[in-house]
Amino acid sequence: MKPVEAVFDAAGASVPRVMQRVERRMAEVSVDHGAALARHAGETIAAGGKRLRPLLVCLAAGVPSPESDTLVHSAVAVELVHGATLVHDDVLDASLLRRGRPTVVASSGRRMATATGDLLFSRAFAELSLTRSLSAVCALSRASSELALGELMQRSDAWSGDVTVGRYLERCRLKTAVLFRAACELGAIEGEGPMDTLGTFGEQIGLAFQLLDDVLDVSGPPERTGKPQGADLLDGTITLPLIEARARDRELAALEVRDLRTATDARAVCERIAATGALETARARALQMVAGAKSILPALPDRQRAALDLVADGVVERYS
Amino acid sequence: MKPVEAVFDAAGASVPRVMQRVERRMAEVSVDHGAALARHAGETIAAGGKRLRPLLVCLAAGVPSPESDTLVHSAVAVELVHGATLVHDDVLDASLLRRGRPTVVASSGRRMATATGDLLFSRAFAELSLTRSLSAVCALSRASSELALGELMQRSDAWSGDVTVGRYLERCRLKTAVLFRAACELGAIEGEGPMDTLGTFGEQIGLAFQLLDDVLDVSGPPERTGKPQGADLLDGTITLPLIEARARDRELAALEVRDLRTATDARAVCERIAATGALETARARALQMVAGAKSILPALPDRQRAALDLVADGVVERYS
Repeated sequence: MKPVEAVFDAAGASVPRVMQRVERRMAEVSVDHGAALARHAGETIAAGGKRLRPLLVCLAAGVPSPESDTLVHSAVAVELVHGATLVHDDVLDASLLRRGRPTVVASSGRRMATATGDLLFSRAFAELSLTRSLSAVCALSRASSELALGELMQRSDAWSGDVTVGRYLERCRLKTAVLFRAACELGAIEGEGPMDTLGTFGEQIGLAFQLLDDVLDVSGPPERTGKPQGADLLDGTITLPLIEARARDRELAALEVRDLRTATDARAVCERIAATGALETARARALQMVAGAKSILPALPDRQRAALDLVADGVVERYS
Repeated sequence: MKPVEAVFDAAGASVPRVMQRVERRMAEVSVDHGAALARHAGETIAAGGKRLRPLLVCLAAGVPSPESDTLVHSAVAVELVHGATLVHDDVLDASLLRRGRPTVVASSGRRMATATGDLLFSRAFAELSLTRSLSAVCALSRASSELALGELMQRSDAWSGDVTVGRYLERCRLKTAVLFRAACELGAIEGEGPMDTLGTFGEQIGLAFQLLDDVLDVSGPPERTGKPQGADLLDGTITLPLIEARARDRELAALEVRDLRTATDARAVCERIAATGALETARARALQMVAGAKSILPALPDRQRAALDLVADGVVERYS
């Protein structure tokens, strides 16, 4: 995404101040269990990331008061759920690095990492209940359930030869977009904005975010995306570029993804997918979703509108 | 525990009717994601178990109305969190059977099982938010965080030669007793009873439950406990019987648990622990906790009191 500073500039002085409070609260949460026990959860939280979801909470809330505790709790809760899913994903993928640091599973093993993810999930709801908003708890628990369903769907569709575009999009919605939706819904609750419309905005840019992720997996380059090209293929995850390319290239249509063994195999298939023009199609679809998301935004103060537009554009103009 | 029918008799007609509703709701939750996707979560829920925690919710609530939806939601939420921890435990222990059925990890692999556990966690909070009680959400999210901390503590203490009784009891509190506490607290919220006292009652019988579990791991017999004797030892989990026995038997004090390799090794250590009288000490401690728990119960209607007493006695008079 575009430098976060540009979003902060557009959003005005109060948003960076709230985001600093979010960061401080994340640090507090990571140490508030005292002992070395929560070291792993602490490391995960501290490792940072784009903080895109907390930013969405703040921007959807409108012009937030830096003094709003409930806004900070909501933003932190969404990021904790996100962190929980990353830790569990790393367990399942046996990933060694995330954001340039050793993953919890790499440094402490599967048991610690699974428990750390569970802790982050639970802490998210403890944090959110500090807002005293039942609507917020409902929104986040629904999103969390759907994230898990998305992961189940991804596994049951792994290696499959007949994933349709519709099914792919539903999976993207479940595994990614619902948390973007929840972030915007939590912001709407805080700012008393329209929950449905802001939620749909979030969902659409979440979908675009996932589509672009899937394009970058095929297009690389690894030195910019930070992950090996074709990792999804080796993992059996069937994404839009492959689905589109299969409709255009008979040899790809006949390909058994399960037979791919090496990074070299995967790179060769990526190049073949790219040659069909499927990446442009997928990218165009992501851009269309972003345009759609921006178009449905209700009348909003100029600064809020500009900041949300920047974030929406940012999800399809990024490399990692 | 004693036959649940005895508890139902003591508790009166309304409790079995509410528990039937809990069972029906568990079945509904397990299918309400429609697709085969949620099959694994459904199987886990349907596989049943003692339903001890939902029963505590109902009994702590007092004389519940079978028509109380919020009571059913609370009871189901607690059992879903319990189910989530079981599914994740099975992933970590690579267990093949639970309650006589294949575990999720055995039938569907680690990915599916991790996601299934996450789904059950999230669904628990979605279910609980239907009660519209923020106090309930706070109580359960605190308990869930502590359960995860308990698992982290168990792993960081694994194989350790210097786990104190105090540290062992704190681990039991975190990994087991907090959910018994939450069950009673949720019941107290529903029945407008004293949350602190009922919560402490729950915590004490939860501790006793875990102590007896740890005694049964050493004493067997496997055909009654349903698990191999000394499984904790092979897993590196240091429990009260070993801690007590080490203080009485020099050879046990010098034992490196990490060196135990086979079921035969573990059985031999179990017999040596039993010979020190440590099992009786641990069992006495569990009985003392149960007596303490019963003694702090406030003035309650006779039926409710009798039913809670029966459950409290039941946790230390069981084999599985």
